[in-house]
Amino acid sequence: MDARTSDIDILVSEVGPRDGLQSIGSIMPTEAKKAWIAAEAAAGVREIEVGSFVPARLLPQLADTAEIVAYARTIPGLTVAVLVPNARGAEAAIASGADKITLPLSVSETHSLANLRRTHEQVIAEAGAIGRMIAAQPPGLRPHFEGSLSTVFGCTLEGPISDAQVGRLAAALMNAGCDEVGLSDTTGYADPASVRRLIALVRNVVGRGALTGIHLHNTRGLGLANALAALDCGLTTLDASLGGIGGCPFAPGASGNIVTEDLVFMLEAMGLRTGIDIDRLLAVRELVAQALPQEEMFGFLPDAKLPLGFRSAPALEYI
Amino acid sequence: MDARTSDIDILVSEVGPRDGLQSIGSIMPTEAKKAWIAAEAAAGVREIEVGSFVPARLLPQLADTAEIVAYARTIPGLTVAVLVPNARGAEAAIASGADKITLPLSVSETHSLANLRRTHEQVIAEAGAIGRMIAAQPPGLRPHFEGSLSTVFGCTLEGPISDAQVGRLAAALMNAGCDEVGLSDTTGYADPASVRRLIALVRNVVGRGALTGIHLHNTRGLGLANALAALDCGLTTLDASLGGIGGCPFAPGASGNIVTEDLVFMLEAMGLRTGIDIDRLLAVRELVAQALPQEEMFGFLPDAKLPLGFRSAPALEYI
Repeated sequence: MDARTSDIDILVSEVGPRDGLQSIGSIMPTEAKKAWIAAEAAAGVREIEVGSFVPARLLPQLADTAEIVAYARTIPGLTVAVLVPNARGAEAAIASGADKITLPLSVSETHSLANLRRTHEQVIAEAGAIGRMIAAQPPGLRPHFEGSLSTVFGCTLEGPISDAQVGRLAAALMNAGCDEVGLSDTTGYADPASVRRLIALVRNVVGRGALTGIHLHNTRGLGLANALAALDCGLTTLDASLGGIGGCPFAPGASGNIVTEDLVFMLEAMGLRTGIDIDRLLAVRELVAQALPQEEMFGFLPDAKLPLGFRSAPALEYI
Repeated sequence: MDARTSDIDILVSEVGPRDGLQSIGSIMPTEAKKAWIAAEAAAGVREIEVGSFVPARLLPQLADTAEIVAYARTIPGLTVAVLVPNARGAEAAIASGADKITLPLSVSETHSLANLRRTHEQVIAEAGAIGRMIAAQPPGLRPHFEGSLSTVFGCTLEGPISDAQVGRLAAALMNAGCDEVGLSDTTGYADPASVRRLIALVRNVVGRGALTGIHLHNTRGLGLANALAALDCGLTTLDASLGGIGGCPFAPGASGNIVTEDLVFMLEAMGLRTGIDIDRLLAVRELVAQALPQEEMFGFLPDAKLPLGFRSAPALEYI
């Protein structure tokens, strides 16, 4: 959170254009992505993960990431975030002018090898190379660098991961030059108690200021309960995907991101300012649904509608 | 919570046979209800709301409540709960030998008039009559008497309800002879902040010991987050419906109870003992699905399955 977010309490970071789209079959045209990003920013969303710098042959859906970043940078007040799998991707991300770069590190080494074909040591080496690349940029042009501890709540291949391993890798990412680390419930294994426990554990290693965000899935229905647990611990950035795109929570292995609409409703109902206009956000959902006619969209609020008499934060007290 | 629940942390009260069934079209045969109740009790569920003493012409689905209560009473260790709309229903409930009687009082008078055709004053008078009836029973045979503050998080007809009105009605129910009051999010309007706020408000009126339970819906996807908020406040009884039966959360006005399977998973994952065996609970879901082939069932855990390496409470620490 910085000057751009000083009038809000919680930063909702939209990951649909990256995490959502990378999990679906339909290819969204570049112009449709731009319209989505512009509309969601206009609804008040301050940070959007717009793509991933991976080889186009691996993820053709995201082959236009450089063009999308260039477009998104023209939107005032928007933090343009991208994912990178390695230093090569980070080089492209820096060249594109992205504001924020996230490098995932799977704390399960089995998952890291299966997913990225890299050991922990190799990923940390990439993080170090990225850290040096960023440090070599002129001060005003250095993107924010986050190391994301993925599978941190458990792995579908390994099960639970030891606290010692999580702590060691969090420290290694910071030493490699990350500005902060994030927690990612890649597998939908988190529960409110483990969210609290791991936030405390990682804070002990990296300090309170270097852990502000969490990426949660709703695979087992606990997404918003886990978000509440994270809020209670003082985290201020929550990832979510519009319409839960890209994740049928019933399909193991699918993304199953928490739904932006439901999350924003919960936050605003609680009196926490997101800066987001819920009605306009629901209109963006319609826009995206039209652009992705084959894809299912999730969430409860869009069908249930806002409660009668609902007011966004700052909450007015009842009579 | 009493001697029957001293080895658990949280009492999950199954309301499917009442709140679930009353909202669906299919009539479940009496023998199927008995099989459901027996199987769920065998899975470790300690309290089940088995029916409602309403005129059979209004709710034919629950016309066999007396027979169901008589059967359920034969199950060792099970608290047999019923709903009653008035003193006449309570008379039948007492005669049946139910362990717990719940009288709903809609804190929205508009809703009370539309739903029960009674003013607040009339419902409080019924509560008084029930209180006197129970007091006239021999000490060992007095059912526990709960007054449930329904629509307490807001009403689809009135919107928000004033704090003063909620407090006044909570006090009136206790004065009428209730052993405790409960909060009920009839409309799915609750959020974690309002859950915390109303628990504090009602506790200020009735005392901590006279508010232990909450009935939450998942209409807007916040059901488990709201449950977490209630747990954090120290509530120990949470209502839920197996498979979320009776409530498509997408159909406004439908029940949309939180799903027992997902709730028990969350609690056990958090290290809170429910006494319930999740695998056996999932088997009961199959039994009920076979008995209600026309009805949709909800929940995430049944499809996503338990995390690899999952252990029920008491949680074993990771290495």
